[in-house]
Parts: sequence; C-alpha cells; structure tokens
Amino acid sequence: MTEPIRIITLQENILAANERTAADNRAFLKQRGILALNLISSPGSGKTTLLVETIRALQGAVRCAVIEGDQQTANDAERIAQTGAPVVQINTLSACHLEANLVQKAFESLPMDAIDLLFIENVGNLVCPAEYDLGETEKVVLMSITEGEDKPLKYPLAFHLASALVLTKMDLLPFLRFDLEKCKQNALKIHPGLPIIETSAYSQVGLGLWLDWLEKRVASRPAGNL
Amino acid sequence: MTEPIRIITLQENILAANERTAADNRAFLKQRGILALNLISSPGSGKTTLLVETIRALQGAVRCAVIEGDQQTANDAERIAQTGAPVVQINTLSACHLEANLVQKAFESLPMDAIDLLFIENVGNLVCPAEYDLGETEKVVLMSITEGEDKPLKYPLAFHLASALVLTKMDLLPFLRFDLEKCKQNALKIHPGLPIIETSAYSQVGLGLWLDWLEKRVASRPAGNL
Repeated sequence: MTEPIRIITLQENILAANERTAADNRAFLKQRGILALNLISSPGSGKTTLLVETIRALQGAVRCAVIEGDQQTANDAERIAQTGAPVVQINTLSACHLEANLVQKAFESLPMDAIDLLFIENVGNLVCPAEYDLGETEKVVLMSITEGEDKPLKYPLAFHLASALVLTKMDLLPFLRFDLEKCKQNALKIHPGLPIIETSAYSQVGLGLWLDWLEKRVASRPAGNL
Repeated sequence: MTEPIRIITLQENILAANERTAADNRAFLKQRGILALNLISSPGSGKTTLLVETIRALQGAVRCAVIEGDQQTANDAERIAQTGAPVVQINTLSACHLEANLVQKAFESLPMDAIDLLFIENVGNLVCPAEYDLGETEKVVLMSITEGEDKPLKYPLAFHLASALVLTKMDLLPFLRFDLEKCKQNALKIHPGLPIIETSAYSQVGLGLWLDWLEKRVASRPAGNL
C-alpha cells in the first residue's frame, strides 16, 4: 500500500478567499429570507430532472430560482427555463466545482428580492464541490442508485456535510444489483441521522416526501430583515 | 448569463510539476514495454467491475496489474486482488484525482518487470482526472448509459483526450430514456473518430469487443529496451 498523500498548500489560500465570499453570500441570502440549497452529486444523477419536477410542483406556493453550474453547455438552464423559473447558467470551463464568487456574480442576474428557494445545482462531481462553501443555507447530496451502495464510504465529505441524501432513479431498483439497505447503512455510518429520501422523477415515487422536506425547510427559514 | 470565469494561476504551477513527473513515468513504462491505461469516469460507472471481468478473461495471456485511486476505502483493490492480479490502492483523501507522483510511488509496490498491461483506475470523477497526465500510454473514458447522453458535451476534456469510450451498463438500455445514437453523436462531436465500445459486465455484451481492442493495443505496444 502507498501512503496517502495530501496536496493542500496552494489550495488553502484559495479556500480562505472562498470562505470570505461565502460568508458575504450567506449574509446576503439571510437578509432576503432566501433558503439556498447547494445540490451536489456525480454527473448524471438526475439533479436537473428532479429540479424540473420540483419547481413545477411548487409553482404558485414557493418562488423558486436556480443557478446552474456546468463546465460547458447551457442545456440544464434551458430545461429549467421551460418551467418559467428564473435561472442563470454558469460555465466553469476547466473548473470542477462552483465557488462563492461565481455564485455571487450569478445573484446579479436573478430577482433576488422575489425568491423563497434558490437551488444551486453544482457541477456534476461528488468530490470537489463538497469542499467549497458557496454561502448556501444547506447542502443536499443526490445519488443515483445505479452508482452502487459504496459511494458514501468512498466520497464521504459530501455525505458528511449534507442535510439530506436524495436517492434518485429508484424505478431502476428491480434491474440492478444494488443493496439499498447497505447503501443507507453506509450513508448513516458517515452521517448518523441523515434524512434519506428515495425518489424517482420518472415514476414519481417519493417526490411527495422530497417536497414535504423542502416545504418544511422553506417554512422554517429565518425571515429576511431588509 | 454570467461570464465564464477561469481560475488557473495557482493551478498552472501544480500542472507544470506534474508534467515533469508524468514524463518520467512515461519513460519508465516505455523502457519496460508496459501499456498503461488511465481509466476515467464518473463515480459508479462500473470501472472496477469491468476490470475484474477483463483481468479474468486475459489471465494466462496478458500479465495485468492495477493501480486503484479512491478518496477513501480499499474496496476496489480488494475486489481486484481476488483475481490474483497485483494491485495497489492509493487513497487520495481530499484530492479529487490521481497525480503523477502518486502513480510513481505506486510503481514501487508492483512487479514492474513482469507486467504487460497496467490499468490505472482514477478517482471517480469525470472532470479533474482528465487534467492530470500520469504518464500513461493512453486514456480510456468510461460512461454508464444511466448518466445520460449529454455527458460528452458537458465534460468534454475526458472524451477529447481518450483513445476509446467504453459505454457500460448496456443491459439497462430497455429501462432508460437514453438516446444511444445521440450519445454517440455527442461523443464524436467532441472527438471525431473515437472508438465507442458498448459493454455490460453483467450480461457480458460487448466484452469481446473490449478485449479485442485491448489485445490489439497490447500487441502493438513498443517493446521495452531494458
């Protein structure tokens, strides 16, 4: 076995600058009474599909907006725009995660005085996005059950920091060798008490539970003080 | 739309140091006549499962070894070890990709004079691993068809740099809304002429094509000169 090696020297400076901007973002969001959720997952876990369903279901009740992070393309923003929700696409090009300054810049393009719930869909990457505070209210980690039950153990930080785990593509369960109970155990080993919400945007299974979780979060957010 | 912003200043120093070590690794591998493949994909695409099947199929014909990269756990190395192939696990902890110096260190724990084909299974991440040359002979990108047909467009670098695209979990095709032709078009848009190999480790579909591709590569590698 080789020894684990960490490369942190240069990264520490970047993280410190990011923390300061994240604190500004957090204050800005709090003043306006916005619940901001930073959604983290592997590529292709179904974040955008779930968001489209979620925004449609909350229409008229909760004012949603979305910041989309991708290395390339505006595909996801175009899908969100079809719901009528305000959306900004950030293309990070070579960068593998969103940072607080990119999110701050995105605020300028959104009607920040008329939003209850801001979804920040991070770059599809289970690793790096977890390390960068964006100033969000909470993180939510999503995981497609096609990824295998060991992912919480292999990429623990995102699961450790999240307020909820949303399992996606539950409709595929009959066709996979996926041990659902083991997956939950692994997630709870990393993060005891983590709420785990089983969903499928296609079969609509579990969407009610996800919406309930969201609505409770929105209802209990601190009021703005502008 | 916000403007794309690149953060490259500090990263450039890291990349330059990595390039030098990668060149050393490449020379070391070439001297020994080893074909080294750097496997890049999202988490849970099925890299390890495919490797286990591949090593078993090549047993007696091609001497395989594996370097496993993960943030945490030795799960993957344990699965590979069951095939009898020499394997080293690198745990990168906070790092989201392998770097050339980690691979160089791993060489010390492998029988480098008795290997024809070295698989380097990178950290599950479609983004960062593509940016770091490890000194491999070639990169191979894997993509589970559960991830959706837009991934080559959203994460183009890995597809651009790879010598082949291996589509995995083809057995799930009947249960997905996945446009296979569109996916191939997207991959070929990023990388014209890219060989695309459709596989399922579970149904064994396409494994013969993958093994053919590998064996041709192994047969045509330059002989060592030690």
